[in-house]
Amino acid sequence: MFRKLLIGSSLTLTGYFAGSFIERRRTEPCKEIFPGIPGLFDSVYAATPVSLPDVVPSKGVSSSRTSQIMKYGFPGFDQIRSFDNYILSYDRRNRVAHWVFEHLTPEGCKPNPDVDRAKCDFKPDDTIHPFFRSENSDYKHSGFDRGHLAAAGNHKFHQKHCEDTFFLSNMAPQVGSGFNRDAWNRLEKYVRKLTKKYANVYCCTGPLYLPRREDDGKMYVKYQVIGNNSVAVPTHFFKVVVCERSDGQLEMESFVMPNQVISDQTPVTMFQVPPETIERAAGLLFFSNVNRKMLVSINGKKP
Amino acid sequence: MFRKLLIGSSLTLTGYFAGSFIERRRTEPCKEIFPGIPGLFDSVYAATPVSLPDVVPSKGVSSSRTSQIMKYGFPGFDQIRSFDNYILSYDRRNRVAHWVFEHLTPEGCKPNPDVDRAKCDFKPDDTIHPFFRSENSDYKHSGFDRGHLAAAGNHKFHQKHCEDTFFLSNMAPQVGSGFNRDAWNRLEKYVRKLTKKYANVYCCTGPLYLPRREDDGKMYVKYQVIGNNSVAVPTHFFKVVVCERSDGQLEMESFVMPNQVISDQTPVTMFQVPPETIERAAGLLFFSNVNRKMLVSINGKKP
Repeated sequence: MFRKLLIGSSLTLTGYFAGSFIERRRTEPCKEIFPGIPGLFDSVYAATPVSLPDVVPSKGVSSSRTSQIMKYGFPGFDQIRSFDNYILSYDRRNRVAHWVFEHLTPEGCKPNPDVDRAKCDFKPDDTIHPFFRSENSDYKHSGFDRGHLAAAGNHKFHQKHCEDTFFLSNMAPQVGSGFNRDAWNRLEKYVRKLTKKYANVYCCTGPLYLPRREDDGKMYVKYQVIGNNSVAVPTHFFKVVVCERSDGQLEMESFVMPNQVISDQTPVTMFQVPPETIERAAGLLFFSNVNRKMLVSINGKKP
Repeated sequence: MFRKLLIGSSLTLTGYFAGSFIERRRTEPCKEIFPGIPGLFDSVYAATPVSLPDVVPSKGVSSSRTSQIMKYGFPGFDQIRSFDNYILSYDRRNRVAHWVFEHLTPEGCKPNPDVDRAKCDFKPDDTIHPFFRSENSDYKHSGFDRGHLAAAGNHKFHQKHCEDTFFLSNMAPQVGSGFNRDAWNRLEKYVRKLTKKYANVYCCTGPLYLPRREDDGKMYVKYQVIGNNSVAVPTHFFKVVVCERSDGQLEMESFVMPNQVISDQTPVTMFQVPPETIERAAGLLFFSNVNRKMLVSINGKKP
């Protein structure tokens, strides 16, 4: 029954998702040539892989904080990097995180005059092997913002927490005006505002590279890569959120937004999609430690 | 000096690689439309992730065999699956392995009348979560072969070893005639033949999804996905091989082939590329445990 209901709701939502926003926005002229593979990675290192640990805890990270953040399970285990206040899994092929995980609380999200975002600089993450590390130069003149996955505004308790969100491993190329600075920002604020109602909010954020059908009838994944390090420009981004109610029961919401200009009039709830759709597309499993009996709603509906 | 030499050779080879094969083959007419995102994953499961271990050793796998195969290091650690005679890392997003690793010996590659390839069936790998598992139906009518990554011909010592190579987790969609059944097969035979000269040959094989420049001047990664499970069709495949000489010194060879019809006249050595180029493109680090002092040649040249 549980399964049946979800299949129904997912088809509806997927259908919606398929039709509306994306179709209207994709209007750029389309041409393709096949000029051969260009000098893919022009500057090539010697075959001397630097030895780096696969899990890199930040200095002084409390492991109990990590276990708090990841209480409901890791979506995957590739290249885990733990910061003081959020956890990240890095996709070395695309030079963008697979996912970041945050635990939001009313205190952590409160505006704090001691924390100054203007003092934070975008900086390369030196714990990532140089072959796979994105640099500020990759974004320069690309036309894309360095868009936060773990939002700076979620980490206002300490200056260090805020600064940690400015590592380039936490960035993805995002359309600036109309998306990063607008619709995506509204979604971030929406999630942050949940802490006014719930004492604990768990949020997983990441990129998607979604296929679409072309006129030969076949499905293709296609995305731009920018800079010398070929940083992938995701076609979409997701957020999957679990809120703990005071009675211990859990509510889940999950969103997918296309990485493009989105009208100011569109409410964030219009971007809700079934979590399974995101799991399949991302190759991840969200909140696998959640006791399903405690999960009382998914996107406002009984699961 | 080591580094300088490699940079030089890599640029030359990359330049070659860029120009020759790929350019000539890409002749299909090109059109693109943007019909919106179709019902990406039509049948959607309930949000009930099945709990599976991240490392799945096959029943009765000797851990010492695993350590033999992986002697020179894991290229990455995402979703490791160990079979009796080869090791695999699975890419849940693309439903194709990141890499497979084999240890070839003269005995293991010898033709064995007791092992019958015809008795082996292509079968889904039930240790992969159903959200991310490829099925035989994904390949049906796709026009692509189920191409082995760990070649069946490398596992002729036991019937079980041969059968293990027929799990769909070890397959990738490959162009059949002109590639899987021809050029790629020649490369597999070339690697297998190395066991006539070297007692131990270590071989890592996997897919690539390489970007190319389009006529807007920007770089794009583009690849087809097939079937209900959206199995990715790699643009290229790689093999990175290390041979142990009797004096203990090591020789490395590394190859990239485009997933397309390749002329019978093209010698496999024409597909040699610097290992670093593959590492950067795949997001992997090969043979990181190799003592670099023992590495006396890369693609026939001093490193």
